[in-house]
Amino acid sequence: MRFNNDYNCGAHPEIIKALENTNNESYCGYGLDEWCLKASDEIKKYLGNANADIHFLVGGTQTNFTVIAAALRPFQGVISADSGHINVHETGAVENTGHKVHVLKSENGKITAEQIAKEAEFFNTSDVKEHITQPKMVYISFPTEYGTIYTKQELEEISKTCKKYKLYLFIDGARLGYGLGSKGCDITMKDLAELTDVFYIGGTKCGAFFGEAVVITNDELKENFRSYIKQNGGLLAKGWLLGIQFYTLFKDGLYFDITKKADELALEIKNAFESKGIPSYIESFTNQQFVILPNDAMEKLKKYIYEFEMKIDENHSCVRFCTSWSSKKEDVSELVKDIKLL
Amino acid sequence: MRFNNDYNCGAHPEIIKALENTNNESYCGYGLDEWCLKASDEIKKYLGNANADIHFLVGGTQTNFTVIAAALRPFQGVISADSGHINVHETGAVENTGHKVHVLKSENGKITAEQIAKEAEFFNTSDVKEHITQPKMVYISFPTEYGTIYTKQELEEISKTCKKYKLYLFIDGARLGYGLGSKGCDITMKDLAELTDVFYIGGTKCGAFFGEAVVITNDELKENFRSYIKQNGGLLAKGWLLGIQFYTLFKDGLYFDITKKADELALEIKNAFESKGIPSYIESFTNQQFVILPNDAMEKLKKYIYEFEMKIDENHSCVRFCTSWSSKKEDVSELVKDIKLL
Amino acid sequence: MRFNNDYNCGAHPEIIKALENTNNESYCGYGLDEWCLKASDEIKKYLGNANADIHFLVGGTQTNFTVIAAALRPFQGVISADSGHINVHETGAVENTGHKVHVLKSENGKITAEQIAKEAEFFNTSDVKEHITQPKMVYISFPTEYGTIYTKQELEEISKTCKKYKLYLFIDGARLGYGLGSKGCDITMKDLAELTDVFYIGGTKCGAFFGEAVVITNDELKENFRSYIKQNGGLLAKGWLLGIQFYTLFKDGLYFDITKKADELALEIKNAFESKGIPSYIESFTNQQFVILPNDAMEKLKKYIYEFEMKIDENHSCVRFCTSWSSKKEDVSELVKDIKLL
Amino acid sequence: MRFNNDYNCGAHPEIIKALENTNNESYCGYGLDEWCLKASDEIKKYLGNANADIHFLVGGTQTNFTVIAAALRPFQGVISADSGHINVHETGAVENTGHKVHVLKSENGKITAEQIAKEAEFFNTSDVKEHITQPKMVYISFPTEYGTIYTKQELEEISKTCKKYKLYLFIDGARLGYGLGSKGCDITMKDLAELTDVFYIGGTKCGAFFGEAVVITNDELKENFRSYIKQNGGLLAKGWLLGIQFYTLFKDGLYFDITKKADELALEIKNAFESKGIPSYIESFTNQQFVILPNDAMEKLKKYIYEFEMKIDENHSCVRFCTSWSSKKEDVSELVKDIKLL
Repeated sequence: MRFNNDYNCGAHPEIIKALENTNNESYCGYGLDEWCLKASDEIKKYLGNANADIHFLVGGTQTNFTVIAAALRPFQGVISADSGHINVHETGAVENTGHKVHVLKSENGKITAEQIAKEAEFFNTSDVKEHITQPKMVYISFPTEYGTIYTKQELEEISKTCKKYKLYLFIDGARLGYGLGSKGCDITMKDLAELTDVFYIGGTKCGAFFGEAVVITNDELKENFRSYIKQNGGLLAKGWLLGIQFYTLFKDGLYFDITKKADELALEIKNAFESKGIPSYIESFTNQQFVILPNDAMEKLKKYIYEFEMKIDENHSCVRFCTSWSSKKEDVSELVKDIKLL
Repeated sequence: MRFNNDYNCGAHPEIIKALENTNNESYCGYGLDEWCLKASDEIKKYLGNANADIHFLVGGTQTNFTVIAAALRPFQGVISADSGHINVHETGAVENTGHKVHVLKSENGKITAEQIAKEAEFFNTSDVKEHITQPKMVYISFPTEYGTIYTKQELEEISKTCKKYKLYLFIDGARLGYGLGSKGCDITMKDLAELTDVFYIGGTKCGAFFGEAVVITNDELKENFRSYIKQNGGLLAKGWLLGIQFYTLFKDGLYFDITKKADELALEIKNAFESKGIPSYIESFTNQQFVILPNDAMEKLKKYIYEFEMKIDENHSCVRFCTSWSSKKEDVSELVKDIKLL
Repeated sequence: MRFNNDYNCGAHPEIIKALENTNNESYCGYGLDEWCLKASDEIKKYLGNANADIHFLVGGTQTNFTVIAAALRPFQGVISADSGHINVHETGAVENTGHKVHVLKSENGKITAEQIAKEAEFFNTSDVKEHITQPKMVYISFPTEYGTIYTKQELEEISKTCKKYKLYLFIDGARLGYGLGSKGCDITMKDLAELTDVFYIGGTKCGAFFGEAVVITNDELKENFRSYIKQNGGLLAKGWLLGIQFYTLFKDGLYFDITKKADELALEIKNAFESKGIPSYIESFTNQQFVILPNDAMEKLKKYIYEFEMKIDENHSCVRFCTSWSSKKEDVSELVKDIKLL
Repeated sequence: MRFNNDYNCGAHPEIIKALENTNNESYCGYGLDEWCLKASDEIKKYLGNANADIHFLVGGTQTNFTVIAAALRPFQGVISADSGHINVHETGAVENTGHKVHVLKSENGKITAEQIAKEAEFFNTSDVKEHITQPKMVYISFPTEYGTIYTKQELEEISKTCKKYKLYLFIDGARLGYGLGSKGCDITMKDLAELTDVFYIGGTKCGAFFGEAVVITNDELKENFRSYIKQNGGLLAKGWLLGIQFYTLFKDGLYFDITKKADELALEIKNAFESKGIPSYIESFTNQQFVILPNDAMEKLKKYIYEFEMKIDENHSCVRFCTSWSSKKEDVSELVKDIKLL
């Protein structure tokens, strides 16, 4: 039973079925097909923005560096939490496109409007601007790498700060569904469309075989985006495969249902640990639960595949238990039972 | 009926079935799963080289620039035919990684050992080497963009020349099956493994939903290749999807059967045009047929979707008819009949 | 006696004197000093454009790739003659910044408005724009690598074509003085300022120790240019050294006098060869003379250092004789005498 | 009277004289002249390493990114103190070449062997190496941005750590003379040649008009270095200008004399401040003195040009007083007198 991550299983059965049903059809290539159009239309219903441009890419790292490389000029950089995926888990892909990551200290994966303002002010008030990189984009993830989420108010403040300093706001939504469906989340896709310049809706971790849907609302970032996708290797020849997947996920809200369910299962795990006095490393209400396990508990739970994060001290480690759209109720129940037996 | 390209249909039914059968399983991510291993093993049976490294990427452009960026130092470039995919259809992806494409004139998509030697000699005999880029890799495609293929002798000569000048030989096999299965082809996968430093086996155009299998035989190019894949956005989270597809295609030789059949259908089209005195733009025995159609013939065949290439003169245009693993015998027969009626 | 190039001697004595005179002064760094300002003012007198931005960089290759990297987005490329310095003698510096060089065939170092229009049309009329690079800048040199120059009419046509297709026109003026001072030249600095978006005035080859003055007239290219200079290593700490040199060269027209004189000396060499029936490889009226020398003449002139270009046939080679601001009348006279003795 | 930096004055009079004396000579271009050879020979006398490769570049930023780009593969990064010049004052030039800067926290501009080991261990023990960048080079400056210097023991430990983890050790010696000449320094050029893989000897800030002499002792870094210089715009056409300057500085130890004198003058300033109870921001014995000035003292010293660094609190600011080879004894005496009057 894998609880190590949220990309260990194929795709939702509806997607398999949709691919099967269309397998005898032939389509126009490179995302210019009817399924991508239909998927965009379904997604737009949630955005409240008919003018958004929607593009379908294959994976998260690819999406991150493509969006960033498309937005920035060579002397500009992107602001990120120190724990941001682009800063720590993408083999320097952003730097490989020539851009600096402006790193902000973060305890729980989140950064604040104040921190962003300070970084922007540092540049704006510098009298040697040509010697330093200009922060021009803010990258945040929703949920973050630690499973935490921004409140609507936090996001509004960040958005306002970005507008004030002419920074693009870019949200990595690789796990977007798990954020939107989580307990206490007061943010909607419409909010994201309004508050950001560009964000993406993760498919890979949220029910699809693969795929990330990029939503661009700022006209400045729309131009030539397909050229950037192609140049960076993200333009899938059989683009309709992405369209079909996102259409399936969004036409009846399947995307939201399956991720919400995963959040609920994660909370069962969270509660089970809490009831045993095993603390969270970071408080999360989404599908990722980071807990500080004593060594003997690690041993006792070893039949479950979970992810080791780091040693905390001689007797404890931080580990991640992750649910997903594919997690089975009965598996979680078994895990919960075993936790209670600790 | 689409004859415009070889990537307009989903995947071979066996692949759909394999994906369905494994959809309830969970796997290790990023290509470290058992299916990728099994696929590699099947492919190696054709290579005669147990030490080859095999990596699965998603698409062709991505594979091309990743291989090239991994192999070259900043002052080095890659030799290509002027019509090479990396030179004309990848939005400058190679240059985007910082490398010059050394362009060689080509009439039919192929380049010769002599041309390569001349380019290498130009650098080697220069007394201002630090002012010019060093050609360090040769990129050829098999089949080429025009559907032509190299003979074994040509490839041996190119390989020998590359060894002499310490150039890496890289073959883009996006359409590899259609080359290997074509009439008159005297080359095998084993030859490719012996004669090149790195090549890839195209899946996207040859029966898979997507995927390209990179075969690296030169130890110098093996090191850290996964880092390059990740950095360039090609490391699919659910890597086993690639493994399953290639395993399905190679375990019983399906790959070779379905591409060979496509070649045969293409020859029927070729012969039909020839019998009507409609000449090929370039003589090809693979799945791509470029013919010079009179305007009225273009009109008469317009119920078929084919690809316009360029105007030849007032009355003629070069167009491409393309078969693929998904082409149906009956569709080709209908096209052939209509050609005969021209 | 060196006739091999135009950068084999220090600087004009006036420049040495100016550097000496200011050596006890202290200045603000990075080109924000009074000398750079004064130099700009002197240069602007020739431009008829008070709004031009003028920046001083150290060398030509650096200037070329900095200007190009500053102007282009990642999917855009620069058009150049095949013999263009950026294409053949800069170790792929442009590609190293991520951009493709769109190469146009040229016989004499020049390209035409028609060629440019064709390249731009190819992109504009493509229906797969996102798969190809967009030509966005035209790079020409004045004089060219072969010493040839554009006529005013040719340049006007090129400029018009660039405007029509929204291409930036960039002139590499590493040898600008030798072009402007040459017999038959009907172009002025004012014309350059009007017809281009950015060009530069070569100092290194025209009397200075080093230095190139970039003149930007297009507002789109002005923004943040100093950031690009710094990022690309061209922002000289003691920037006033550039200011002093250009001020010295331009305050009384010294720049034009010394380069014109070099052109006249070059014509003496040209005429001497012609009178002996030794043909030019390419007809040039600037300081570079390319002639086709028989082997025995090469031998007889070997006390002069000239530059070998290439073998023409068994008995002839193309060689370059180059004058410069530092060429001495008496040396040229001796060479002319020896040519006449051939 | 400028105490704001160490690059506000031309060049040592001996250099002016040397340039004058050679101004009528003509030389081979691009650093292949006899002066560069002679300068290298003089420098090698201090290195105790006849096999070192020495290259002359124009400026520090250029040298930094050229050395780093030449050493690293795309997935590799360079370790630096957070205050390192490459991290904060080069407009992201390192990232522009595609590489991540691995930032280590530092209080006084220095980093420790322990910190380096920890960063290297993090990579070495990671089980997702292909997802993260590999630190492959350590960049330190001597003296640091804060004027501090490493002891021989510290440097030996760092060197040993680098060897252990196969990291290249690169020292930015833009102010090298001021480090070597400072009170308490127990390091020599020979030590640097032994302990590093590559370092450079700053000319721009230490008596020359411009120029940095790169010393490469590791054979792996020697290959094709001239190609990297050219590609990155650092290959000065009239390379002998660099050779002459470094020859002048090193043939009789002038380099060491003039920088040592500057250090002594800086200590006078330091002592003057200390005697008034005005504390250093960071303790330095080289030419840069960072002090925490009360507002009224700032006002009283405003006839001197010094560099503002940052506000410390309402009533205090950190400012830099910098001496250099060109600082005049009498100016320092006047400043010292005025400090004493505070």
